[in-house]
Amino acid sequence: MTRVLIVGSGGVGTMAALTLSSKEHVEVTLVVRSDYDLVTLKGYTFNSVSFGVIEGWRPQHVAKSVEEAAENGPFDFIVLSTKNVPDGPTTCEDIIRPAVKIGKTAIVMIQNGLGIEGPMLREFPGCVILSGVSLIGLTNLGGVIKHSHRDLLLLSAFDNPSVPKAECVRVAKQFQELYQHADPAMNNVVLEDDAQQSRWEKLVYNSVLNTVCTISGLDVNRCQINGANEGIFGLAMDEVYAIARSTGVEIRPELKSYYQHIGDGLFYLPSMLVDLRKKQLLELEVILGNPLQIARKNNVPVPILSTIYQLLKMIQFRVKEERGMVNVDEAAYKGVSSDDYPSFFENSQKEV
Amino acid sequence: MTRVLIVGSGGVGTMAALTLSSKEHVEVTLVVRSDYDLVTLKGYTFNSVSFGVIEGWRPQHVAKSVEEAAENGPFDFIVLSTKNVPDGPTTCEDIIRPAVKIGKTAIVMIQNGLGIEGPMLREFPGCVILSGVSLIGLTNLGGVIKHSHRDLLLLSAFDNPSVPKAECVRVAKQFQELYQHADPAMNNVVLEDDAQQSRWEKLVYNSVLNTVCTISGLDVNRCQINGANEGIFGLAMDEVYAIARSTGVEIRPELKSYYQHIGDGLFYLPSMLVDLRKKQLLELEVILGNPLQIARKNNVPVPILSTIYQLLKMIQFRVKEERGMVNVDEAAYKGVSSDDYPSFFENSQKEV
Repeated sequence: MTRVLIVGSGGVGTMAALTLSSKEHVEVTLVVRSDYDLVTLKGYTFNSVSFGVIEGWRPQHVAKSVEEAAENGPFDFIVLSTKNVPDGPTTCEDIIRPAVKIGKTAIVMIQNGLGIEGPMLREFPGCVILSGVSLIGLTNLGGVIKHSHRDLLLLSAFDNPSVPKAECVRVAKQFQELYQHADPAMNNVVLEDDAQQSRWEKLVYNSVLNTVCTISGLDVNRCQINGANEGIFGLAMDEVYAIARSTGVEIRPELKSYYQHIGDGLFYLPSMLVDLRKKQLLELEVILGNPLQIARKNNVPVPILSTIYQLLKMIQFRVKEERGMVNVDEAAYKGVSSDDYPSFFENSQKEV
Repeated sequence: MTRVLIVGSGGVGTMAALTLSSKEHVEVTLVVRSDYDLVTLKGYTFNSVSFGVIEGWRPQHVAKSVEEAAENGPFDFIVLSTKNVPDGPTTCEDIIRPAVKIGKTAIVMIQNGLGIEGPMLREFPGCVILSGVSLIGLTNLGGVIKHSHRDLLLLSAFDNPSVPKAECVRVAKQFQELYQHADPAMNNVVLEDDAQQSRWEKLVYNSVLNTVCTISGLDVNRCQINGANEGIFGLAMDEVYAIARSTGVEIRPELKSYYQHIGDGLFYLPSMLVDLRKKQLLELEVILGNPLQIARKNNVPVPILSTIYQLLKMIQFRVKEERGMVNVDEAAYKGVSSDDYPSFFENSQKEV
């Protein structure tokens, strides 16, 4: 029996639960927080291009928390498909910690962004850490999953100083077999020998279109109506290409135009903008902060991404303050009095 | 009798009405739109550092529109203290047109931004156009004006191809005498020989702190808590300095630090952010668009200001759409189908 814990019950996590549950000898535990009562009472409804219409579906185990889920362990795999917000109240490593068994559990990070493996490698030495880049079109609205494309997962093992490469690859291969449906029309799990190429390539979308739409409050099409393709989108994408190149990754040139036109005619809100409207924290650090640290280290000039990052950092601060996660004690900030305002000009102007 | 029309009854316009009304031989007409009933019924209340507490004050004439005000003309001066939004539904030149008498009326633009004189020079040849940079601390909330610093007005004549320089200077001097209160403690009208230095210097504040606060939704202090002084504020200010330098204007170096600390300990919202929260159009083109056109012409690299501008242009578009000024016909935009989404990756990934 292979035991899999899935943490993060958005679209990706729920589809993973459904897919893995179709295999014999796999026991799935899904952590469901906000929709727990709904899911235990009614189950999930799928309207899936691959699996058809399924109603009232539940995985073998549903748990309210990772602590509670740990009773169904020890787990061979933890699939982590939550948002990744290292500057939030709880980091991903703290979320899964109660269910990780060092030396046994492999962690499959189906998340966006760069450098997400760093904290896991540090906190869980001896665990294999896998990278999953998910290319899937779905939404999960209150337990109803609409799934419009065959699920593509680009899978690989992160470089790992505490586990031999061969063992990492063996575990990645094991998860590929586990997650690949018997019918290849149902999904496609591609094993890659390195995580970085796919992660950088997905970043071209996430660090540019997601972020600009979030700041402007507009969908991709409305940004384009305002000239974004020739302007901020294109220029910011060039900077992502340049940072990747400084690490030895050549992002395919045609990806830029592909992403510039991915939303043509589709007036949908990118996920980060949806998060902002719900006053949820943004995946800012893994999507922009970490790439910018690499740019700084490698002396890559990135004025546009850096400006976008600083603006989003302030917007993130606003969300944190609105949620009571940070508190500004205004009385503690003393400064020049506003009564001095025009004095600079008063004293320095020369009359003609 | 000198007849003055004041268009724009915010803090600056109302203080101008009060100041000019204190002079004999000046007849003031003030155009009041939204607060018209309030002002005609109750008048203004001033709580002024210069004029003290005044209640129930009204200028000689209050008009609901410029058309109506024109009956009190012809005017020697039109003081224009509205927002300047050339991409809005009504341009400043169209607003004042019914009251302009070519060859008689001088237009005093007490407004922010650069290049604001262009449309006036084009539309009203033969009229003297004056520049007013107002450094004044006041608010006008529903007819109650709180005025906290002595009013400083930096006055000059814009270069004018259709009026001899000597005549422009004579008219500027005339308005200085008109607007300068007999008691110098009341206000300070400084006549400068050129408009550009002061306009660029005020732009260091308006094009940087105003814009960044508007995008982030934070006041200046909260931006600073997030490192803005060393980051986006400082870097964007350097770009304003560089554009000004390309036109021959040397902004005083110490102004940067002055503006970086102007809001220390003061948790107020800059006016552009207040406009956005009220869903009013932003003074984007005169504050950023026009300076960026100069940068382009003079080959000054301005990646940060340009990014800020593009983001604000999208935000402005959002405001326009919310106000029904633009309409996006979503059905008219056809593009690639979302069903093609993962195909790019499906077809190009190599398995290991």
